[in-house]
Amino acid sequence: MAAKPLDEFARIARFFAPLALPGALELRDDVALIPGGRGAQYVLKTDAIVEGVHFFADDPPADVARKLLRVNLSDLAAKGATPVGYLLTLALPKSRGDRWLAAFARGLAADQRGFRIGLFGGDSDATHGPAVLSLTAIGRVRAGRAILRRGARPGDTVYVSGTLGDAAFGLAVLEGRLRIGPAARRYLVRRFRLPEPRLALGRRLVGIAHAAADISDGLVADLGHICAASGVGAIIEAARLPLSAPARAIVARAPHRLLAALNHGDDYELVFTAPPAAAPRIAAAARAAGVRVTAVGRIVGGRAVRVVGVGGRPLRLRRSGYRHF
Amino acid sequence: MAAKPLDEFARIARFFAPLALPGALELRDDVALIPGGRGAQYVLKTDAIVEGVHFFADDPPADVARKLLRVNLSDLAAKGATPVGYLLTLALPKSRGDRWLAAFARGLAADQRGFRIGLFGGDSDATHGPAVLSLTAIGRVRAGRAILRRGARPGDTVYVSGTLGDAAFGLAVLEGRLRIGPAARRYLVRRFRLPEPRLALGRRLVGIAHAAADISDGLVADLGHICAASGVGAIIEAARLPLSAPARAIVARAPHRLLAALNHGDDYELVFTAPPAAAPRIAAAARAAGVRVTAVGRIVGGRAVRVVGVGGRPLRLRRSGYRHF
Repeated sequence: MAAKPLDEFARIARFFAPLALPGALELRDDVALIPGGRGAQYVLKTDAIVEGVHFFADDPPADVARKLLRVNLSDLAAKGATPVGYLLTLALPKSRGDRWLAAFARGLAADQRGFRIGLFGGDSDATHGPAVLSLTAIGRVRAGRAILRRGARPGDTVYVSGTLGDAAFGLAVLEGRLRIGPAARRYLVRRFRLPEPRLALGRRLVGIAHAAADISDGLVADLGHICAASGVGAIIEAARLPLSAPARAIVARAPHRLLAALNHGDDYELVFTAPPAAAPRIAAAARAAGVRVTAVGRIVGGRAVRVVGVGGRPLRLRRSGYRHF
Repeated sequence: MAAKPLDEFARIARFFAPLALPGALELRDDVALIPGGRGAQYVLKTDAIVEGVHFFADDPPADVARKLLRVNLSDLAAKGATPVGYLLTLALPKSRGDRWLAAFARGLAADQRGFRIGLFGGDSDATHGPAVLSLTAIGRVRAGRAILRRGARPGDTVYVSGTLGDAAFGLAVLEGRLRIGPAARRYLVRRFRLPEPRLALGRRLVGIAHAAADISDGLVADLGHICAASGVGAIIEAARLPLSAPARAIVARAPHRLLAALNHGDDYELVFTAPPAAAPRIAAAARAAGVRVTAVGRIVGGRAVRVVGVGGRPLRLRRSGYRHF
């Protein structure tokens, strides 16, 4: 009788948590911290994307490169860190020739300028399968000041940056599951392909936010990570979820699609918690960073992340799996 | 008319060198250096291995894990660095279940103890293709003391650690291209599957060696990297190549197989250069590290790596491609 396969969370807890260094924060924070000298720490983050799973074979190579970089920078943003540079490994099928690689490198170059970072090194190999692209990002933060997942306290307000669900709708458009006008399509596909790591906001939340994470697995899942690490629960009010105009139009036509804003990852916005008294400072941080911030709920006792609907009734939702360790 | 595809060297020079930070040493040293505080620098190295290219699908998972770790630690050894920890990304086909992963993690655990390092974090994803495993290793070295590739000078002696060609013969055995007795088979296959990063030797070469690299692409290619970075040439005397007893027996029967010791990578021994006056200190370092060190040639002017045979006549050899950036 074969045992039931472990999910990612159980795999990490069983196989990898015992291997972790103290700086790895028990593998519960998606990043590690190591001493950086001059009163700073380095923040380390690694993530990979797989062709056919995280991106499409015919996606523009420059966008693939930029998304690979940005999903890692997004984790640095959640810690309040400033990115420094990155290492890269590329396992590429022979079909990815010089033209593809040239466009990929142009994407990296564009984002390097935008984020003021550079390449530390890498490795390129052939594979017989789909492309697998892995990136390790390194950022800096003042020692002891990184915003961790484990600091949320009952009574904290839960905030999110930007708007949620856009990436899910962009993916649905690309997969032919959602038909909308050309302008909305362009906007949503871009949100899916080119997430915006909230670095300017994250830096300004240092010393204000109690806990933060980026939304890579979905709001419920990523707030769940904060709650698990902090030993608290949370309540999200679905009516408060910030939606873009195209997303609002989609949800107005098909209200069940609001679940995309709760459960789908890939938005790479920040979810963070702070005491109610910090509201003015958070508003000021959001203004200074030029990004919208919305209170969507609060931290409570217990362990669960609950979502209450417009009428105050609880919504039952699947919880996305843990994917990182 | 399609342009001829670029080789790895040209790809790196054209697409990635323009992206590199100063600490990346123009991508000519296989590692990057960043400030580490307290008079130290971190040494960063990333490398990936692909199922069906760098390892066999039925290789013991613990050995796959240890080789992935060791090929990266080997680069730290060449810099004279002490390893601290690593990050890991795994793209795994569904066929790699919990049993495979458990054995993989046991391999990591064993080597973590042996090398006194730990895991900083990682990421695990599904792929529809062969497994792609990527690792970023982080080590420490006293600031400004890392042994680089670019320090070789004409007149230096060229040394290698351990013995060469074992990994090539181990691979040939596994692929059925070489038939030998069981004891020799076990020895050579182990050398292929479990290279020994020469960390203890590397640390002791700091301040003595002018330049060093690990032999991942073959002696001629990796000494070629040193020569290219240093603006020098080298002469290797084939008769001096250190061979293990099993390798010596193989070459005695088939002299052309000596090329494996010159041209094949995967031995992960060190090649380094030092002035002749340093010979006694190098002998002492080798004794203290418990590893054999052999003088195999010298650094000269020019740019080429030449190999002279037993009778003094030049050997003509293919030069392996650059694989890393």
